[in-house]
Amino acid sequence: MINISDISNQLPYLKFKKLYKEALTAQQPNIEAVCISSFDNKNRESNSRFVNLKYIINDEWIFFSNYLGPKSKEFNYCPNISAVFFWHQTNTQIRIKAKIQKSPKEFSDNHFKHRDKGKNILAISSEQSKEIDSYNDFIDVYEQASKKILNTQKRPAHWGGYSFRPYYFEFWQGHNLRINKREAFIFEKDVWKNIFLQP
Amino acid sequence: MINISDISNQLPYLKFKKLYKEALTAQQPNIEAVCISSFDNKNRESNSRFVNLKYIINDEWIFFSNYLGPKSKEFNYCPNISAVFFWHQTNTQIRIKAKIQKSPKEFSDNHFKHRDKGKNILAISSEQSKEIDSYNDFIDVYEQASKKILNTQKRPAHWGGYSFRPYYFEFWQGHNLRINKREAFIFEKDVWKNIFLQP
Repeated sequence: MINISDISNQLPYLKFKKLYKEALTAQQPNIEAVCISSFDNKNRESNSRFVNLKYIINDEWIFFSNYLGPKSKEFNYCPNISAVFFWHQTNTQIRIKAKIQKSPKEFSDNHFKHRDKGKNILAISSEQSKEIDSYNDFIDVYEQASKKILNTQKRPAHWGGYSFRPYYFEFWQGHNLRINKREAFIFEKDVWKNIFLQP
Repeated sequence: MINISDISNQLPYLKFKKLYKEALTAQQPNIEAVCISSFDNKNRESNSRFVNLKYIINDEWIFFSNYLGPKSKEFNYCPNISAVFFWHQTNTQIRIKAKIQKSPKEFSDNHFKHRDKGKNILAISSEQSKEIDSYNDFIDVYEQASKKILNTQKRPAHWGGYSFRPYYFEFWQGHNLRINKREAFIFEKDVWKNIFLQP
């Protein structure tokens, strides 16, 4: 689930909210899973991964992450990321282009404070994406951390929120003959321009 | 479904095949849906969309597309794309980095010949991603095309396969406390190097 209680009332947001509720009613599993793509300029390659979107607050879309992994370097190089949802239960795809930045520290602190203890031990102890010899090696690190860490509510500096603000939406509705319905919203000169695209 | 009858026997391919069969057994819907990401150099932004993967033949992964839309320009600028599957039924994510190019013409011709007539009329008549005034406008174009097109088995030059060959795989297995299992394969000096990553 995504917390959308404080979502914006701008047109594409109203559309998102409607489609989100339809997918929720249709019991879409992992409705919060969104594929975030970025560009690795060093190796000149695209890179993407699913994350769990936690909040939409006004026009900001927020997930949490380790700040030292590869995606942070990629966001630094080029903050224009893409974000894609696909909800098979309703055959809906939502494609977003957005500008990303770190969330305010206080916001991340507060979210961390109310998170599950086990997840916080993981966030504190993992050097995300670093090479290890085996999965079991990390289980040892984690178990040692579980014993040592006294305050699991104190957010480490290397972990926190990312907020992205969309400047492009495409709402895609699948059709059995591929005559897909594609409606886009582009943010130009402070207004959302609404267009349709050939399938 | 993906046609994987002629898949390579290299290590990450065997692993993919195993996970694919598990997800298939667990009745994963839209198992062939893969998020393809590319980089739009003109606007300096990432862009991504889901496509249906049709074949894995030896070490080539193939989907079909219009050749004149935005993604083709992006593939031209930077052929190092990423491809991500997420199968919620087994909590499996597969992240791939790969080099992409157009499939041989004969291959695309042959695939087109055996495709559904209605889908082919769409492939012939649509100028994918071009702006239109309304969805119904395109329905008119499509209906006119249905009457006019005599040979629906002849592939138009603007439509065909894309084949990508992976040089990086990450197999990600979700864990309820986020102690996710991450195993990667990197193609270096003609061999697949196998490593593990911190969660």
